[in-house]
Amino acid sequence: MKSMMDINCDCGESFGNYRMGQDEQMLPLVSSVNLACGFHAGDPVTMREAVDVAVANGCMIGAHPGLPDILGFGRRRMLITADDAYAYIVYQVGALQGMLRTRGLEIHHVKPHGALFAMLSTMPELGVAAANAVRDVAPNALVYWPLTSGDQFVVTLRECGFRVVGEIYPDLSYHDDGTIVVQRKKTHTDSKEAAEQVRRFVTSGCVQTIEGNMLPLEAESICLHGDDPNGVEIATEVRKVLDEHGCAVGLRS
Amino acid sequence: MKSMMDINCDCGESFGNYRMGQDEQMLPLVSSVNLACGFHAGDPVTMREAVDVAVANGCMIGAHPGLPDILGFGRRRMLITADDAYAYIVYQVGALQGMLRTRGLEIHHVKPHGALFAMLSTMPELGVAAANAVRDVAPNALVYWPLTSGDQFVVTLRECGFRVVGEIYPDLSYHDDGTIVVQRKKTHTDSKEAAEQVRRFVTSGCVQTIEGNMLPLEAESICLHGDDPNGVEIATEVRKVLDEHGCAVGLRS
Amino acid sequence: MKSMMDINCDCGESFGNYRMGQDEQMLPLVSSVNLACGFHAGDPVTMREAVDVAVANGCMIGAHPGLPDILGFGRRRMLITADDAYAYIVYQVGALQGMLRTRGLEIHHVKPHGALFAMLSTMPELGVAAANAVRDVAPNALVYWPLTSGDQFVVTLRECGFRVVGEIYPDLSYHDDGTIVVQRKKTHTDSKEAAEQVRRFVTSGCVQTIEGNMLPLEAESICLHGDDPNGVEIATEVRKVLDEHGCAVGLRS
Amino acid sequence: MKSMMDINCDCGESFGNYRMGQDEQMLPLVSSVNLACGFHAGDPVTMREAVDVAVANGCMIGAHPGLPDILGFGRRRMLITADDAYAYIVYQVGALQGMLRTRGLEIHHVKPHGALFAMLSTMPELGVAAANAVRDVAPNALVYWPLTSGDQFVVTLRECGFRVVGEIYPDLSYHDDGTIVVQRKKTHTDSKEAAEQVRRFVTSGCVQTIEGNMLPLEAESICLHGDDPNGVEIATEVRKVLDEHGCAVGLRS
Repeated sequence: MKSMMDINCDCGESFGNYRMGQDEQMLPLVSSVNLACGFHAGDPVTMREAVDVAVANGCMIGAHPGLPDILGFGRRRMLITADDAYAYIVYQVGALQGMLRTRGLEIHHVKPHGALFAMLSTMPELGVAAANAVRDVAPNALVYWPLTSGDQFVVTLRECGFRVVGEIYPDLSYHDDGTIVVQRKKTHTDSKEAAEQVRRFVTSGCVQTIEGNMLPLEAESICLHGDDPNGVEIATEVRKVLDEHGCAVGLRS
Repeated sequence: MKSMMDINCDCGESFGNYRMGQDEQMLPLVSSVNLACGFHAGDPVTMREAVDVAVANGCMIGAHPGLPDILGFGRRRMLITADDAYAYIVYQVGALQGMLRTRGLEIHHVKPHGALFAMLSTMPELGVAAANAVRDVAPNALVYWPLTSGDQFVVTLRECGFRVVGEIYPDLSYHDDGTIVVQRKKTHTDSKEAAEQVRRFVTSGCVQTIEGNMLPLEAESICLHGDDPNGVEIATEVRKVLDEHGCAVGLRS
Repeated sequence: MKSMMDINCDCGESFGNYRMGQDEQMLPLVSSVNLACGFHAGDPVTMREAVDVAVANGCMIGAHPGLPDILGFGRRRMLITADDAYAYIVYQVGALQGMLRTRGLEIHHVKPHGALFAMLSTMPELGVAAANAVRDVAPNALVYWPLTSGDQFVVTLRECGFRVVGEIYPDLSYHDDGTIVVQRKKTHTDSKEAAEQVRRFVTSGCVQTIEGNMLPLEAESICLHGDDPNGVEIATEVRKVLDEHGCAVGLRS
Repeated sequence: MKSMMDINCDCGESFGNYRMGQDEQMLPLVSSVNLACGFHAGDPVTMREAVDVAVANGCMIGAHPGLPDILGFGRRRMLITADDAYAYIVYQVGALQGMLRTRGLEIHHVKPHGALFAMLSTMPELGVAAANAVRDVAPNALVYWPLTSGDQFVVTLRECGFRVVGEIYPDLSYHDDGTIVVQRKKTHTDSKEAAEQVRRFVTSGCVQTIEGNMLPLEAESICLHGDDPNGVEIATEVRKVLDEHGCAVGLRS
């Protein structure tokens, strides 16, 4: 039985006059946020406002660096080099650290976004560059990442000395090998099923795979999505489950 | 007679495959640089490389934040708000601080670029926002700025506790009231005249105005331009003048 | 009594994953649309989809060119040159003409957006450049513009041979001199008042000014805003008024 | 013996204050140009100026559409969809058609740039989308493309009814299977070797492969690169070869 789980969600993904996500509704329900840094989403004014909302809700604040592609919301793979990856991450994390410094805060964690996230596992030289970037710019930051066995990026992160905070995704399905079934287009997520996945994990440490088996998962944080149409409903259901099982919301320090 | 003068120039103003300036040639000749931060020029990879070149040449490194307009090179006024100004400066300075942290360095100064520079003097609410931004994100940074009498932004900066490093522009002409004659399009600068303006200042503390008078100037730093076609020639001539008069190159601490 | 009025609204102002406006709800209620062209809003995929929605609803399609500032939604003045204005408009109108050509369509009108709109009246050299741009790239297009007396841009347009389609804004207030009171931030618009303004105009050819007088207005098109929170409600009310007075919806050819 | 060969080169690849290429020097030496359209390079003002330079030099003008990535100069693959490819090409070609219309001109050809070029051969659904896009927006345009045997995109283009103008690259090396050896970073090109490759082709219709064999090539246009450091020298040498063999410069209509 898990006695404490962090809940994280993305935030600050608006851009100028364009709204994205439901930060005001989601942030009261989570304990940590991944804040967009202006490459795939977000802009300086949005970042500043998102920091304020996160602070007001007592959330720990991490950076959510992405590819330089607002038009594609950072979800299209771009063949960047390792030098690109290093510099893009340092730049974005540094920009957020600047925003946080104006509030007397330090960065809590880093969680890569979208296609950058996907490329770090499959392109080892990018993974090394990314790990070095975070180590060099924010040596005390944690890294949020799914702890799938055999992921070379996790090995790299740990060799760099990072604490890797494993994630569980209530609104995604797992295969027996721990890989996640990412939908091309988000369809409606059943909040009851999402809550059930969390209940199973909290009580057993496992998720049920689409092959029908129980898969043990190493996870300290539940990842929710504020751009889900019913993201607030899911977050509410997930919190109920945690409450029912006496599982505190937050990250074990 | 001045015994020590800093020389600053912009650097890191390339963008992707596009080259701008002559950092490799200019930086050996200056003592401090204003590094573009990705809004009017520069990008993360360029910034990282520019930091390396600056470090290799022993230059002090400052941020050169600008308006978000690479197409206009930050030289077109945009009617941004005070909130925009604050957040844009924090973001850009923070990003450079991130780059510097990867090298174990701290930011030395901030010098606003182009149209942002021009707006800070003429739009007081932007000046206050900019001063607050620098104070909040880089409280120990100096600010480079021309010390023209009656400039409200200088008053604001000093009220915020900043050391303002006055600048002299060898390649621009001064009016009797201390205002500078900015050319719409850079024409060829006579390196002898530029050197002569520096010689006059070093020996007398004055510049000659286009009205023909001697104008006392408060300046600790000589501002050169690497995007001048003959910028390297001017820098070489200026350094000769300083050498001839036993004026050390650097900023009095 | 007016027997025929066009209704226009902006459309295609989404950007990548970011949604803006309510094209699907608004377009069945209007007779012509101003389609964003990728500078202040919109992108090629969005434009193509917006063209399809407009065609499906039988709307005439015009270009809505703006300043190159998606972050500011084209609502921040930028000190562009006349050469910039000319080239920006040709480029954007040309891009939309390309989209329309794939459907066998021609452009119906041009209506400048936001800060570009505002600058064309107050900066005559930009107005001339803009008029020349439209004449050179789309000589058969109409131009939508409020026919305020004394507006030099209207004179310029007519000298270029354009038919200028005058607009009335049901959700804005008029002064006695015909100038419009533009709100910095859109507050809720009372749909009954908006409908009343249309009723008054249709029956009398006048609007009531905030000074309390009746101002005759030359207008063939009613401009509605899909980014109004209650834009659809306003459009519905306005159409009811037109129906009640037997005023057909469309533009007299 | 070839009696007529077109020479094409890219142009209009500057961006705002950033210069790229040597249009003024190159265009007198070529007969057709591929004009950047603002996605990988170029901007509206640059496009307009490039059209003028091309017209002054009697060049036929084609569009050079690329990926939306100025930072990467369109040379980084991005996982765009077929819908993206279609809309990006229509938009860019349409924008150039707009520019040309202001000069009373029509578009001559389309030649995809960089990573978009590379993806069209290897991702068939993008190739189909691109061919449809050109057919829909510029049905009379030619398409410039290397006629490598087995290239599905060539089949697609011909099925769409396009005349495909085959290209030969004097500064690249060929394999026996007709594939080209693209260098990651351009090193100095030997202008004598480039000229020799052209001489061999003009006299024999073949190029020599790096395996040492003679490869017959179907080509009507010689592709030169203005961003080559010695691009002007190469162009001059190539023209000399054509002159020596009485080969006219231009495209057979």
